[in-house]
Amino acid sequence: MAEKIHFIPITGLPVVQPGDDLADLLLTALSKMGETLQNGDVIALAQKIVSKSEGQLINLAGITAGELAHEIAPLAAKDPRHVEVILRESKQIIWVSPGIFVVETYHGYVCANAGVDRSNIEQEGNGEILCLLPRNPDASAANLRATLEKRTGVKLAVIINDTHGRPFRMGGVGVLLGASGIVALHDERGQTDMFGYRLQATLTAMGDELAAATSLVMGQSAQGVPAVIVRGLSYERPDPDLGAKPLIRPGDKDVFRYPPGSDTWRARVLPHW
Amino acid sequence: MAEKIHFIPITGLPVVQPGDDLADLLLTALSKMGETLQNGDVIALAQKIVSKSEGQLINLAGITAGELAHEIAPLAAKDPRHVEVILRESKQIIWVSPGIFVVETYHGYVCANAGVDRSNIEQEGNGEILCLLPRNPDASAANLRATLEKRTGVKLAVIINDTHGRPFRMGGVGVLLGASGIVALHDERGQTDMFGYRLQATLTAMGDELAAATSLVMGQSAQGVPAVIVRGLSYERPDPDLGAKPLIRPGDKDVFRYPPGSDTWRARVLPHW
Repeated sequence: MAEKIHFIPITGLPVVQPGDDLADLLLTALSKMGETLQNGDVIALAQKIVSKSEGQLINLAGITAGELAHEIAPLAAKDPRHVEVILRESKQIIWVSPGIFVVETYHGYVCANAGVDRSNIEQEGNGEILCLLPRNPDASAANLRATLEKRTGVKLAVIINDTHGRPFRMGGVGVLLGASGIVALHDERGQTDMFGYRLQATLTAMGDELAAATSLVMGQSAQGVPAVIVRGLSYERPDPDLGAKPLIRPGDKDVFRYPPGSDTWRARVLPHW
Repeated sequence: MAEKIHFIPITGLPVVQPGDDLADLLLTALSKMGETLQNGDVIALAQKIVSKSEGQLINLAGITAGELAHEIAPLAAKDPRHVEVILRESKQIIWVSPGIFVVETYHGYVCANAGVDRSNIEQEGNGEILCLLPRNPDASAANLRATLEKRTGVKLAVIINDTHGRPFRMGGVGVLLGASGIVALHDERGQTDMFGYRLQATLTAMGDELAAATSLVMGQSAQGVPAVIVRGLSYERPDPDLGAKPLIRPGDKDVFRYPPGSDTWRARVLPHW
């Protein structure tokens, strides 16, 4: 029997500041909404509020661009200091052209600009403040889950969303950056369909579908809502908990990872990770 | 003010047969559930039930593989007749290797096997029946929307989901194959963030996020539920209605479309579309 699934935007969160306790902010907002967490709820958080609470902010005013950053900046049509920050977050450069700078981050994510972004970041008088991805998004999710479970007494899952562009398709979609308490990749190979046919290649990125769903809900208000509760979803609890990592496609299993012409950069694997 | 969004699986649909009237089947199932459609509801349908209702089925027993299909079959590790069917659905071959056969379909979708699939298709005594994508998924969605709106008196949107694999990430996710009554790609460039910063590169594939969300809900029961109502979503009504087409990334704007080594096939653009 398939049940209804409800997506509940968590409204009334303040602008998150470095050092803020997200569990506190979430529970206060929920209490103002007259909402309590229930067993099995999934809490989805936008990457940016997790990064900000963890102080993952960097001021360009303090950055000196190195040689490689100066070389890439005109090709990427970006400030060399911005490129420097992206390179520090990267293991490998995948593609550079004006407006498209795709790297593999030190976490293993293949995405534009290593996820470094300035939108929705409060700026100070001078300089320009950029937001980096959390150092370890799975650990961020696990810590928040542990705190929320302790304070509410219910079993939860926590996911952290980012938005990625994609080959083949226009526009960004929500993807899973970090997770705790939920299996992100389902392997249905060997199961049978409704007529007994054995499924052959069915890996479902349930974690990314969930991130896309909650990203859709986060985008529903004009200013965006950075946290959403998913209620009524059936999901598997992982053991061991691999977080969002199973969704990362290894480079050697990805024929599309290196476009023609990317060899120039691929040869220069960045040494610092 | 952000509102709750509800996903309601439409249960109790029969196994869809060629010639079935999907609007009839959906309204009957809803009536048995005690559910009525409301203004603004989005009805999401799995591609397979749309294809089956439109008779988009083909029996391999009646297929003769051509020369190119015979050449590709061992490279793709597939039955030459199966390859023949895929080629007939394709404008261009993007990549062939054992287990990976990526093409651009005549609709413009870049996906594995041109979306041709045999899972959840009732098989006859001899031969093997494969399911093709709908001929014109946007038109399928528009027709169903017109019928449902006429019969219920409410304004709706209809989307048709498929599941695609992706570069960079493991596992398939729901993507938008056809749509009517909803803007699939949002352009937020030029809008400002919560601190007045002008957003620079924000195209959001809301249609794909919605397809991923409803695909997640469809996968929640053991046998899958091929139709879902989304209630409470804010969305823009398109004028003109471009359906799912804005989500197709043109080949010349996609540096990742042709992996190294794909030139062999790219040179042989298929002539029949």
